[in-house]
Amino acid sequence: KLRKGGDTETGNWLQELQTWPLWRAVLAEFLATLVFVFIGTMSAVDIVPLTDPAGKFVRIGLTFGLMIAVCIQMIGHVSGGHMNPAVSLAMAVAMEISPARAVLYTVAQCCGGMLGSLLLKGVTPGELNDNLGLTTINPDLNGGQAVACEIVFTFILVMSIFGCTDPSRALFGSPALGIGLTVSVLHFASIPFTGASMNPARSLASSVVSNNFDLHWKTPSFPETARQLMDSKD
Amino acid sequence: KLRKGGDTETGNWLQELQTWPLWRAVLAEFLATLVFVFIGTMSAVDIVPLTDPAGKFVRIGLTFGLMIAVCIQMIGHVSGGHMNPAVSLAMAVAMEISPARAVLYTVAQCCGGMLGSLLLKGVTPGELNDNLGLTTINPDLNGGQAVACEIVFTFILVMSIFGCTDPSRALFGSPALGIGLTVSVLHFASIPFTGASMNPARSLASSVVSNNFDLHWKTPSFPETARQLMDSKD
Amino acid sequence: KLRKGGDTETGNWLQELQTWPLWRAVLAEFLATLVFVFIGTMSAVDIVPLTDPAGKFVRIGLTFGLMIAVCIQMIGHVSGGHMNPAVSLAMAVAMEISPARAVLYTVAQCCGGMLGSLLLKGVTPGELNDNLGLTTINPDLNGGQAVACEIVFTFILVMSIFGCTDPSRALFGSPALGIGLTVSVLHFASIPFTGASMNPARSLASSVVSNNFDLHWKTPSFPETARQLMDSKD
Amino acid sequence: KLRKGGDTETGNWLQELQTWPLWRAVLAEFLATLVFVFIGTMSAVDIVPLTDPAGKFVRIGLTFGLMIAVCIQMIGHVSGGHMNPAVSLAMAVAMEISPARAVLYTVAQCCGGMLGSLLLKGVTPGELNDNLGLTTINPDLNGGQAVACEIVFTFILVMSIFGCTDPSRALFGSPALGIGLTVSVLHFASIPFTGASMNPARSLASSVVSNNFDLHWKTPSFPETARQLMDSKD
Repeated sequence: KLRKGGDTETGNWLQELQTWPLWRAVLAEFLATLVFVFIGTMSAVDIVPLTDPAGKFVRIGLTFGLMIAVCIQMIGHVSGGHMNPAVSLAMAVAMEISPARAVLYTVAQCCGGMLGSLLLKGVTPGELNDNLGLTTINPDLNGGQAVACEIVFTFILVMSIFGCTDPSRALFGSPALGIGLTVSVLHFASIPFTGASMNPARSLASSVVSNNFDLHWKTPSFPETARQLMDSKD
Repeated sequence: KLRKGGDTETGNWLQELQTWPLWRAVLAEFLATLVFVFIGTMSAVDIVPLTDPAGKFVRIGLTFGLMIAVCIQMIGHVSGGHMNPAVSLAMAVAMEISPARAVLYTVAQCCGGMLGSLLLKGVTPGELNDNLGLTTINPDLNGGQAVACEIVFTFILVMSIFGCTDPSRALFGSPALGIGLTVSVLHFASIPFTGASMNPARSLASSVVSNNFDLHWKTPSFPETARQLMDSKD
Repeated sequence: KLRKGGDTETGNWLQELQTWPLWRAVLAEFLATLVFVFIGTMSAVDIVPLTDPAGKFVRIGLTFGLMIAVCIQMIGHVSGGHMNPAVSLAMAVAMEISPARAVLYTVAQCCGGMLGSLLLKGVTPGELNDNLGLTTINPDLNGGQAVACEIVFTFILVMSIFGCTDPSRALFGSPALGIGLTVSVLHFASIPFTGASMNPARSLASSVVSNNFDLHWKTPSFPETARQLMDSKD
Repeated sequence: KLRKGGDTETGNWLQELQTWPLWRAVLAEFLATLVFVFIGTMSAVDIVPLTDPAGKFVRIGLTFGLMIAVCIQMIGHVSGGHMNPAVSLAMAVAMEISPARAVLYTVAQCCGGMLGSLLLKGVTPGELNDNLGLTTINPDLNGGQAVACEIVFTFILVMSIFGCTDPSRALFGSPALGIGLTVSVLHFASIPFTGASMNPARSLASSVVSNNFDLHWKTPSFPETARQLMDSKD
């Protein structure tokens, strides 16, 4: 089962902290997020000049999506295979894992992601070190549009994960491949819009290691976001 | 099962209208068509200039096809996962769902598709709002040729759906992936011919929101269609 | 089971000719080869100018391969889903189907393929009618090289089909997808070499309908083939 | 089972050498590596000029990865379907196969790979014979960076293989497809970095037959490697 999280039903979260399976799962998340960020963002580094964006989007989307599937194959039986704080949060909200576990996973994912990005920096020629697969939002989009996109993307991702891992449904093939292809399809469509974030650990890692926090993000207040969405529909 | 539709065997369609599962299924179709049209047509918006059509076709085809698979994973257990009035119609003709359900699905799909297209318009820079993934027929094709193409495409799609969901056959892997890849392969081949419609809800949504009903469609009468097909074979 | 073929064990081939399942299978092969050739070769018609061959190979390979998978999903339970005289011949040699069935399948496949190609001609603008997805051998290759390529390709295809359909082996996922992806991968590699024939029905159809039998094929005698292979290795 | 290796539990390796299944497995590895290298490196030969690297990476990655899946489908039940000395070594270390078997597999894989590459040379026009899918490291990378990359790639590949073939885990779909897609995703990301070796038999074959051992490999000593990695992170 991809949905497993120790003694959430007893509510005794502190007791779970003393068990070896929890820490093995945290270690697995750390390692899996490391290799996921390393391989995924490696596909987005323009080490050779690319001419056609469509081929680039297919390549990056397939790499991120299938890498998620590969990581779930590797560690799904240990930790559930989240590699994404948003997924861990969703699982905690759905009472599948305990809040303590979600916090530990998130820390492990962020650390693993940053180490993966650092490793990518180590193997990348120096002149490319300023853009290690950064999540960049299209400059033609304003903040409200980007927020709206990411809300829909994350909704689809979380819905698909629950659909793929629900043991009470008819089985729709491999859960690992199902979740991976969901990530791929969201990348295919959204890379030129918002850079296809959907994963705070991965975006944070690239930003910290590239030392670039300029997301072209004109952070809007909520009313402004609503107003911008209204405007753009006129 | 992907083929489920309430009390078609009792023939008591009106009674079905009073059940909660029907309306939950209608809501699921609405939501799934919304995200399907949003993500699918997003991949067809040229927000960055693309140079190579082949890569573009692969990207769009994979996005539409895998998005169908993702939506079936999400809501297949609730409504069957049609997202397409043509599929709902075929299922009604095959007596898998009741006519009333087919009508409600179609309405929900059209509304969801238009809202998805509207959402895409909201997150797209203004100068691109005239072409939000419109289904365009190649101007070198006449109406008869386009009609012939779409008949074959829809035939393949419906046959494949029945093949993937028939419980009496040997299982050919995941139904969701099977149907999704059918949609993908039809897109790969047909985008430069007829724009790969096959889905009235999706085409309607893009046309309404883009306010563009010019399908380069020189609507032919049936005899003219036959004549044109004969002519082009000489 | 994909391997089914009536009463081969009784050896009473003529009796099989009087059974309805045989003729239903022949009709299924006819129809499936028709749509396979129609969609597959449609992806190879350059109705819009393509700039990058790699994207084109991926598009064509995915279309042919996944279309095989789709057709197996549609008619695999009726006829086995060959769509290829080479496959029918291999199945007959392996005693899986009777020789009479193999002959009937081959005739149905050739007729279906030609009708599919004719249909493609009907929906293609006139100036493109000279090249409807023709199987063309790279002019830099001599006949011996092309023959050697096709022998290896067909060996891989037939071995993979037997591997995917052997009921005594551990199941490697969906047989339809396995065979389809085999066709895809052979296309990815071989399109610029020999045009990735591997299917007499499909090559015949394109040649007949395009009225083009010039395969750049300098048919060599066997000793000459051997000599050419030797030469090219020096 | 993909993990099978004869009498490792008895420790009587010499006795295994007299069994027919072992030699059949060695023969299967020889043949599978031959066709794997032939088809895989064929996709990397630039017989037609390619303009866009991204499409090229997708094509090569899909070819290598899916060809691994196809070969596992063909011979997985006979030999386990390694086609890679690194995999055989990992399996021997994990006590899944005997050391004698690993050595025989490695010899068979290297011979098969070289024959496959020789066959590719035979069917390739003469002016392309200097680069038959050589594994080339990006000249901007130093030796330490390339070694670090390959260590991570091989770690992911071996972890994924153990994950896909562990019978005690929940099944994540087809093992053949899982391993194949792992190879694909590593190629997508790493071709422009280190050429995506991960397979000594395949790299050796291309080098021997192309008579080109210049890997742009400025072989560093271990301290130098560590120093270079440190330097590049500053």
